[in-house]
Amino acid sequence: MDQKNLLCVIFLIVTAGLIISFTSTNFSHAPSSTTGLLDCTDSSSSPLCASRNFLFNKPKRLTPKKDPKPKPKNHDHSSDKPNHPLDPLTVVEINKVRSILSSHALFSSRAPHAFHSIVLEEPEKNLVISWEKGNPLPPRKASVIARVGPNTHVLIVDLSSGRVDLEDTPVRVSGYPMMTLEEMNEVTFAPFSSADANRTIVSRGVNLTDVSCFPLSSGWYGKKEENKRVIKSQCYSCQGTANFYMRPIEGLTILIDLDTKQVIEIVDTGPTIPIPGSTNTEYRFQNLATTTDKTRLLNPISIEQPRGPSFVIEDNHLVKWANWEFHLKPDPRAGVVISRVKVHDPDTQQTRDVMYRGFVSELFVPYMDPSDAWYFKTYMDAGEYGFGLQAMPLVPLNDCPRNAAYMDGVFAAADGTPFVRENMVCVFERYAGDIGWRHSESPISGLPIREVRPKVTLVVRMAASVGNYDYIVDYEFQTDGLIKAKVGLSGILMVKGTPYQNKNHIKKDKEGNEEELHGTLLSENIIGVIHDHYVTFYLDLDVDGTDNSFVKVNLKRQETEPGESPRKSYMKAVRNIAKTEKDGQIKLSMYDPSEFHVINSAKTTRVGNPTGYKIVPRATAASLLDHDDPPQKRGAFTNNQIWVTPYNKSEQWAGGLFTYQSHGDDTLAVWSDRDRDIENKDIVVWYTLGFHHVPCQEDFPIMPTVSSSFDLKPTNFFERNPILKAAPNFEHDLPVCGAESVSA
Amino acid sequence: MDQKNLLCVIFLIVTAGLIISFTSTNFSHAPSSTTGLLDCTDSSSSPLCASRNFLFNKPKRLTPKKDPKPKPKNHDHSSDKPNHPLDPLTVVEINKVRSILSSHALFSSRAPHAFHSIVLEEPEKNLVISWEKGNPLPPRKASVIARVGPNTHVLIVDLSSGRVDLEDTPVRVSGYPMMTLEEMNEVTFAPFSSADANRTIVSRGVNLTDVSCFPLSSGWYGKKEENKRVIKSQCYSCQGTANFYMRPIEGLTILIDLDTKQVIEIVDTGPTIPIPGSTNTEYRFQNLATTTDKTRLLNPISIEQPRGPSFVIEDNHLVKWANWEFHLKPDPRAGVVISRVKVHDPDTQQTRDVMYRGFVSELFVPYMDPSDAWYFKTYMDAGEYGFGLQAMPLVPLNDCPRNAAYMDGVFAAADGTPFVRENMVCVFERYAGDIGWRHSESPISGLPIREVRPKVTLVVRMAASVGNYDYIVDYEFQTDGLIKAKVGLSGILMVKGTPYQNKNHIKKDKEGNEEELHGTLLSENIIGVIHDHYVTFYLDLDVDGTDNSFVKVNLKRQETEPGESPRKSYMKAVRNIAKTEKDGQIKLSMYDPSEFHVINSAKTTRVGNPTGYKIVPRATAASLLDHDDPPQKRGAFTNNQIWVTPYNKSEQWAGGLFTYQSHGDDTLAVWSDRDRDIENKDIVVWYTLGFHHVPCQEDFPIMPTVSSSFDLKPTNFFERNPILKAAPNFEHDLPVCGAESVSA
Repeated sequence: MDQKNLLCVIFLIVTAGLIISFTSTNFSHAPSSTTGLLDCTDSSSSPLCASRNFLFNKPKRLTPKKDPKPKPKNHDHSSDKPNHPLDPLTVVEINKVRSILSSHALFSSRAPHAFHSIVLEEPEKNLVISWEKGNPLPPRKASVIARVGPNTHVLIVDLSSGRVDLEDTPVRVSGYPMMTLEEMNEVTFAPFSSADANRTIVSRGVNLTDVSCFPLSSGWYGKKEENKRVIKSQCYSCQGTANFYMRPIEGLTILIDLDTKQVIEIVDTGPTIPIPGSTNTEYRFQNLATTTDKTRLLNPISIEQPRGPSFVIEDNHLVKWANWEFHLKPDPRAGVVISRVKVHDPDTQQTRDVMYRGFVSELFVPYMDPSDAWYFKTYMDAGEYGFGLQAMPLVPLNDCPRNAAYMDGVFAAADGTPFVRENMVCVFERYAGDIGWRHSESPISGLPIREVRPKVTLVVRMAASVGNYDYIVDYEFQTDGLIKAKVGLSGILMVKGTPYQNKNHIKKDKEGNEEELHGTLLSENIIGVIHDHYVTFYLDLDVDGTDNSFVKVNLKRQETEPGESPRKSYMKAVRNIAKTEKDGQIKLSMYDPSEFHVINSAKTTRVGNPTGYKIVPRATAASLLDHDDPPQKRGAFTNNQIWVTPYNKSEQWAGGLFTYQSHGDDTLAVWSDRDRDIENKDIVVWYTLGFHHVPCQEDFPIMPTVSSSFDLKPTNFFERNPILKAAPNFEHDLPVCGAESVSA
Repeated sequence: MDQKNLLCVIFLIVTAGLIISFTSTNFSHAPSSTTGLLDCTDSSSSPLCASRNFLFNKPKRLTPKKDPKPKPKNHDHSSDKPNHPLDPLTVVEINKVRSILSSHALFSSRAPHAFHSIVLEEPEKNLVISWEKGNPLPPRKASVIARVGPNTHVLIVDLSSGRVDLEDTPVRVSGYPMMTLEEMNEVTFAPFSSADANRTIVSRGVNLTDVSCFPLSSGWYGKKEENKRVIKSQCYSCQGTANFYMRPIEGLTILIDLDTKQVIEIVDTGPTIPIPGSTNTEYRFQNLATTTDKTRLLNPISIEQPRGPSFVIEDNHLVKWANWEFHLKPDPRAGVVISRVKVHDPDTQQTRDVMYRGFVSELFVPYMDPSDAWYFKTYMDAGEYGFGLQAMPLVPLNDCPRNAAYMDGVFAAADGTPFVRENMVCVFERYAGDIGWRHSESPISGLPIREVRPKVTLVVRMAASVGNYDYIVDYEFQTDGLIKAKVGLSGILMVKGTPYQNKNHIKKDKEGNEEELHGTLLSENIIGVIHDHYVTFYLDLDVDGTDNSFVKVNLKRQETEPGESPRKSYMKAVRNIAKTEKDGQIKLSMYDPSEFHVINSAKTTRVGNPTGYKIVPRATAASLLDHDDPPQKRGAFTNNQIWVTPYNKSEQWAGGLFTYQSHGDDTLAVWSDRDRDIENKDIVVWYTLGFHHVPCQEDFPIMPTVSSSFDLKPTNFFERNPILKAAPNFEHDLPVCGAESVSA
């Protein structure tokens, strides 16, 4: 079967099925194997079987040569045991939670119910910090977010005692939990159950069998969305292309009840807008490759480590590499969580605390078009869709280099069944030809010094595909103590249909001003709409212990006194310790620059500097939306680039625990406005990495990766350069490599 | 002999020699081989013999294993011929220039004379553009800057006719030419010819045999420096360390006449400041390596290309790789110059112009301490020291990865003798495990799509060691059309001696304010002084031809009309074409952001967008100095982050042609204030990359590299993603690598 029509055929079958019987139960994927793991071997259409689907639908290779290396057998998670207080729930534990809850009163009623999140309830921080390998684990608990009928519940399940505590009934803040993959899946079919929707689609000149509809979170804009979980569906023609995102049925928005999956409202503002064609939209290699393309002339290149990687992953989750160690786990909401980050100090030979926990707390992606089909597109990808749930299996050799190791995610389906997301995270050593440090003496000194050290780093990577967009998140550890958090944007644009085929056709008003397109004409009838991306990181730095302070080192011009110096001015550094949260609300400015240190004032270096790490912003962007605009109220955590809050276990998600349709009453901005003390406290720093994206034709039909990053950099943390004693490369250490392996 | 005392012993010998006979002639290194090349085989102490010195003083290896691969023979440049209109002067041509000038009236007088620069006088741009391979080269000319007695002359020498044109006699702008390596070398000895200087040094408790003095450009602060070329010398104790920069004889500044090398003035404001100790200052591997250091636990890692690199360097200077081609040459002032940059368009199969010429035009490095020994430290490393002259031979396997190719620089000595700076530039393909583009379909679409393309780039690298500091400059070419210019800072800090051994000892005033240190206490008695780095790039973009316009695409908030939308606001892009230079003077702002496009309005894409490239600033910093402060007047080219000027062959050096002691009357800021038309003209964009550097203990005794960059990114230049058809990695293409080569 032609692959590009696969989706449409699935829709045809399913739509037919829906006519016979439409049920809204969420317990459709019962565990069918003895391990209690979701069984994907029957090529099930379950959205949870991502990696298996891929295997079953493996595209044909252009090059028929066989891979010489046998694939290693996938890790069997059915007997995994937790080894560390922060280890994620295992398959056995998730099944136990499901078993405990199946006999709980809440779930014994006939009301439909679904588990929107089943994750480890992390032990209290002090218990985790005092835990050492060999000690018994603190009691294992699960944090469960469930919907029962119209209510959301947060439950804590004690795995050994079986006790279930209801945290709040119902929870009082606005908003709903992260969608389940199952309901996102069901929403894709929902429009086809509405005769009106079908009629409207057909009236746009598209066959129903060629249509694919996608669930777009609705945001929150007032009463219309009140007291009902709603979602909007946007439909595309998938005729002639796998890249249906480029063929929007523009202006058609279908409002759906997310609980019942019933169509509530159909709006079509675009009957006069043609559906863009499929020409030039293909991006799959096997359908594109040509021998004339110059970019194929690159010879193979690879990062090689003849003696193997230098890191180990102990007990499934504890990564040890060079001078670093940290706990790494996949998370359905945050993607990956890095905890208990410690670095070895070459002077004291001790391992010192740097960060208790770091992760992507929330994303905010507002599109910049106020029209009916676009105004609501203001996504919060973590809290609405699950940044980890959307992280697909990484592609070896391409998503990560050959020397990478992979880690699977173990998550729970809406019915509580555990499932495995294979190869969700990769870990690899990176040598990019960069220089760790160097110095050559100039010939005038007469000293024959040429000292250079290569830079080798360790990268932890995941890639989330939230619908059309792909986010690549890297945490990169340098031997000099620096941690770089990097976000790469790729994937496919969310585009808008337009009658225009050429910029010259755009209407002008009397003054000659062009009609506002809200973006760039990328191809005939396609506008790439302007949008922003904000990725807000939670960084619970613990520099040499939990009690830290945030210091703004402001750089400012100082004029000299008359006669003091031939210089009229210089720049000086003024240190201000943040007393309360308001002092930690930071807007960056080129002409009023500062450094931002997290210090431990109780611990100083030999010469008396407080030990510290600094947050080093690099290229970023700030939201220009009105603070009273509903999306900006919900995304108010982007109102500053940096915030500092006192550690509070319940303040993890910058857009609120329940982000979906939230009103902005539970955001980082609200918490921070309480203006609590933050001096010499256990503090959390929040950093927002921003991107403005004005699309250009090069982003069509798929976008070259654009990246930005920020650093956590040791600042008077070590007594001296911690890689002073690092070794240079020697020829005799390097691998002997032969031609490609095929000939073997 | 213990290497760390080598310098001091050299000084002892030379100082003794100076007592017998001190001459200031600059013609001390006569060519002694038949090729007319400076002969370094006698282990000469000439500062021009940089790479040979290194070979003769090769440090002993900790690991005695022998390199298995024989070193390729170095390129013999004696018979090089120019192949391209932009090829640098060859050895033969430089000798010819010297020969022509030796009979010129200017140099026949007894007045001392020196050549401060002998480089190719590039042909007129239109001649270069119209030239094609196989055509005869345009007439070869040399541009010569010479000092004869107290006067500076610019001469154009026609190599075929032997005609010499004096451009200006004497040149009317302020300032002096770039120092020669020979005079920098002689200045290091100058203090020892002064009995007063020697007495002062000895009074600080240092043996003269343990002292090393370095030439620091004086800046310009008014009458004192008028009508005389002066330089300041700062001295260090090199007792017990090769890292003498950490042992300043603080407060001692020796003013020297740069023409006569005579000491003019000695100021010592630091008799009470101890010289910091040598403990912990060592950084050379063979003196440091220990088996207990954890950073040695990294297994070897290498970028491998079993079928060899994918690029070629044709005719010594024309680099061709993937979809790129450009001309590459070392330059004594700019470091490297990249010209005639063209990219292949996969749609049209044509090679299209992107940039006529790009290079580092100037650097500005002001230190932030107004006291007598520090106020003048406001370096302009290109115009004062020669960014290329200070670029030492790169160290294979460490400065550049194993798969790199190297290019030598051929420069002229002060007497006109050509000399070779080996391995000054490297070119390599870089695979860092990054992703060119990707998209995975979410399981809800049912499409089994996992398309990922690895990112492979081409890097051109040089590293200049301007005294203590090391600048790594990379030009990185991506197959998606993006060019990244990246500057890495490493090397050794310029530090200040202090009586303080601990931060607790710092004096406080009545209000409890600490005495201003102007930096950070890095170790006992050592302050790392706050400073900035600005690197200003000349970017003569020619997007599809010479006539281009600069467009500021301003992103601004637009409030919606009442009732227009549930949204209150959105961000819109407003295009403003710069009419004159003032419109192209750009200060960056987070809250008033813009994109900066260089477009060809005569050439549009299929859908009507003008073809363009955008300058994408990333992390950077702005100078906070008073615009009336003398160093900021001279460095006024950093007053904006972006400037746009009409192409003018004479406007190349942002700090002026004669930067040394310049008054700021010939800077980019002065040219730009003429406010010339820049719409639809041949325009040049200038971008300044800035760094604020507040040192920290990790920078001691040598600094881990800190990098920043900016991008030139195609924006509606291509019809679509130009790497759409790029191939993924396949296992069978990758190398088969064995263990390390030693065992063989």
